[in-house]
Amino acid sequence: MKILLVGATGHVGSAVHSALRDTHDVITASRNAGIRVDVTDPASVTEMYRAAGPVDAVVVTVGAAPFKPLADLTRDDFTAGFTGKVLAQINLVQEGVASIADGGSFTLTTGILAREPIRTGAASSMANGALEAFVHAASIELPRGVRINAVSPTVLTEATGYHSSFPGFVPADAAIVAQAYRKAIENPYTGRILTVG
Amino acid sequence: MKILLVGATGHVGSAVHSALRDTHDVITASRNAGIRVDVTDPASVTEMYRAAGPVDAVVVTVGAAPFKPLADLTRDDFTAGFTGKVLAQINLVQEGVASIADGGSFTLTTGILAREPIRTGAASSMANGALEAFVHAASIELPRGVRINAVSPTVLTEATGYHSSFPGFVPADAAIVAQAYRKAIENPYTGRILTVG
Repeated sequence: MKILLVGATGHVGSAVHSALRDTHDVITASRNAGIRVDVTDPASVTEMYRAAGPVDAVVVTVGAAPFKPLADLTRDDFTAGFTGKVLAQINLVQEGVASIADGGSFTLTTGILAREPIRTGAASSMANGALEAFVHAASIELPRGVRINAVSPTVLTEATGYHSSFPGFVPADAAIVAQAYRKAIENPYTGRILTVG
Repeated sequence: MKILLVGATGHVGSAVHSALRDTHDVITASRNAGIRVDVTDPASVTEMYRAAGPVDAVVVTVGAAPFKPLADLTRDDFTAGFTGKVLAQINLVQEGVASIADGGSFTLTTGILAREPIRTGAASSMANGALEAFVHAASIELPRGVRINAVSPTVLTEATGYHSSFPGFVPADAAIVAQAYRKAIENPYTGRILTVG
């Protein structure tokens, strides 16, 4: 398959690249490598899809939200989480439908905070919950058998800087998380949240 | 208890008012009745809490999102759903914490589209999923035993104009939905999504 991987340079994105590149034709896009894209800029996303051409699958491993104690999270923080993670990923779907083959797939990235919160994580939980509900909803309306799923990983083994904020959360290796993307792409799933951890 | 009911004039809000007013001191707020408030305007929300004074519980039954086929939902539509439903309810929590008694409660309103989508409902599903994840997250960080829950109802019997968009969804009477708010307020629950239907 020809797969467009958006966010190819992060811990998850680079592991997904490693997991897919031997058996698929992977085109990478990110802020600083491969096709250059600013996922918060609709014009940049449109240009990325034009440059990539028709694809069988799109994998999105981008999106960030601010981490602060609940009492310190402002309207701007929640809006930043919405714009940077939710709206960016939704826009990649909406703009990408025309580029995807019949029966092709989108695989988005959410995270364990949608179901198991931590202190300082309310904006991230909000963003992940929004995306997971969007995946369920979009899966019943996408045309031509186009599929949509999300991978929702726990904290990564490689992201050691975050481990102290996730007490009792058993980290997962990025290579294991990457297999969930392969599961979403190569099985005929749609509307699923594939949890890891 | 002294309860501030924000959004007292809709189908749900007026039913909650009926369910609570015989046994509680209910203060109502809405765009056009009771304490006047524009829930999308932070200054107006601050003024509403000042006018209401200290309370034991806050019930929020406001928030709208656009309904359109997935292919027609724009960035502005998703942003409108976020601002009008998610950010408005979160702001009511963030601004209201200081007004709530120890062990008091917030009860927000989400909806069945967080878990069972319909055509045209992707922006609403997104908004409801965001709020439900926020409730889980905020419940572990609110101070002084302050609680937070959400009621997530199916389509209301009284909202007859929507029934054709919800095929196979069995409507629930607003008076039954209202009991879920009472359950959230009068039981020592926190972090729960009380589904009706």
